[in-house]
Amino acid sequence: MRISQRSKEGCATFGLAVFAMAATAAETPAPTPAVPTTASILAATKPTDWRALDPENTLYLDLAAGRVVIELLPEFAPAHAANVKALVREGYYDGLSINRVQDNYVVQWGDADGEDETKRRAIRKAKPTVPAEFDRAIAADLPFTALIDGDLYAPEVGWTSGFAAGRDPKAARTWLAHCYGTLGSARGNEADSGGGTELFVVIGHAPRHLDRNITLFGRVVHGLPLLSSLPRGTGALGFYEKPEQRVPIRAMRVAADVPAAERLALEVLRTDTDAFRSLIEARRNRREEWFKYSAGHVELCNVPVPVRAVETPAR
Amino acid sequence: MRISQRSKEGCATFGLAVFAMAATAAETPAPTPAVPTTASILAATKPTDWRALDPENTLYLDLAAGRVVIELLPEFAPAHAANVKALVREGYYDGLSINRVQDNYVVQWGDADGEDETKRRAIRKAKPTVPAEFDRAIAADLPFTALIDGDLYAPEVGWTSGFAAGRDPKAARTWLAHCYGTLGSARGNEADSGGGTELFVVIGHAPRHLDRNITLFGRVVHGLPLLSSLPRGTGALGFYEKPEQRVPIRAMRVAADVPAAERLALEVLRTDTDAFRSLIEARRNRREEWFKYSAGHVELCNVPVPVRAVETPAR
Repeated sequence: MRISQRSKEGCATFGLAVFAMAATAAETPAPTPAVPTTASILAATKPTDWRALDPENTLYLDLAAGRVVIELLPEFAPAHAANVKALVREGYYDGLSINRVQDNYVVQWGDADGEDETKRRAIRKAKPTVPAEFDRAIAADLPFTALIDGDLYAPEVGWTSGFAAGRDPKAARTWLAHCYGTLGSARGNEADSGGGTELFVVIGHAPRHLDRNITLFGRVVHGLPLLSSLPRGTGALGFYEKPEQRVPIRAMRVAADVPAAERLALEVLRTDTDAFRSLIEARRNRREEWFKYSAGHVELCNVPVPVRAVETPAR
Repeated sequence: MRISQRSKEGCATFGLAVFAMAATAAETPAPTPAVPTTASILAATKPTDWRALDPENTLYLDLAAGRVVIELLPEFAPAHAANVKALVREGYYDGLSINRVQDNYVVQWGDADGEDETKRRAIRKAKPTVPAEFDRAIAADLPFTALIDGDLYAPEVGWTSGFAAGRDPKAARTWLAHCYGTLGSARGNEADSGGGTELFVVIGHAPRHLDRNITLFGRVVHGLPLLSSLPRGTGALGFYEKPEQRVPIRAMRVAADVPAAERLALEVLRTDTDAFRSLIEARRNRREEWFKYSAGHVELCNVPVPVRAVETPAR
């Protein structure tokens, strides 16, 4: 028994493990077993179940340790997405740093001297702030795959274009949800005081109480451990106390501005597919042999949207 | 505006920040403001709202980087808690290592050679396995502070003795919930195949689908960043691929076996107090100035139970 303990225990983490390994998942669809599991569903996906990242809405955050890839969803925050791309394109973040890593909460980067008018980095073409985009109108052309289990924070939840989202059908509004890996723009006390000069990514249990309080417009689709495993800051709110603790940003780039040969070719499982709907069901009711009890429900942020690397750029 | 942006943005993280800073929280109760917040509630707590850790149910996991402190709750898994203490006391874990760090999931430690019958560490007095303790009977003497917001995974949720727990009143059963920092015993496919030789701590979004599938019996109350910021393993399930990547365990100790002067004096906010009930409410409805929208609900694992350091051991 002992010999097989580790590999068998692995089944507990099957779902997440598969997502982590999806980059090297089988090219050849496997036959669908009688009892679908996350692994069997992913193995049986068709090429059309996946979509390539749009280079114009993909950001690279380059650190000494490697590259973090972020997918933007401008539909939920067009002004913020455009402004962050403008900041990226004028080199605003290059040479700035990650200044805050708060355990079970967020990683945040921007200008460590932002509070000092004499030292802070100048903004040339982009805007220092843009109006808040906490939610938007529900629209017919905005796809939505609902989660039937409900939610504690929103009247309705599901996925739009690969992003976890909440909706209020009565108010006809929708918004992105704070799940692990979500990208947002920090702000001050005033709703309109952000604009992308300070960006954060969730690295802990979903802080869903922030939904509709911050503008969200992206998520990390590759390299998240480069952020989540950073040393935690020991100052208030997880800010690094010493300048030398800050993690330098080599560069941020829009993928479209990087030579095609230097881009990471990634694909995301489409969330408007039967494959993704099957995957939700497989996570509501775990069929892997390891499970003794199946919850019969699943929470929004416990259904990560799979990402995989492809051999050649899919453009 | 820019100058104050960082400090104001801090309000977004007020709740968690306060928990992080509770170790140095004011000794003098502050006057209760008209609108209670997490900060004001903690500042107004009485000494009797807190309880000292029981040294006999406190474990120290000592790494080169520092000490992780774990509180055990034997009431939910007496056989596992006793066996882990027996393993600790025979020095089983000393010199073993953290072998698995899976992003947004778990850190796991034990015998990296556990699969090799010729090399694995011998167990002397403790048991290699003990029967599963996935849940237990609800009992009148087991305190329970209910969360009125409900839950997707359990008929009823709340807190027992400082631990997040689920309950099924119809079946008269209760169990601990997988929140950030929860300690459990890994197992193989058979329910009774664990026993504490492989321990794990949750370092990601609460994997509540594991509830009632694994025996849980503790939580990290200090030093969690020493685990959550470890480099992620790049092997399947987050196992480190190279032996030199493993993180050595200097020692595990029962606090009662450590000289009193060398113990960390920690106190946990009692979850059967009005202070904790006020804190739940303050997290359901955020009153800090930063918030523009208040959820009116909160999820079980989004109410961390505060821990603070005290100047002198409270025994």
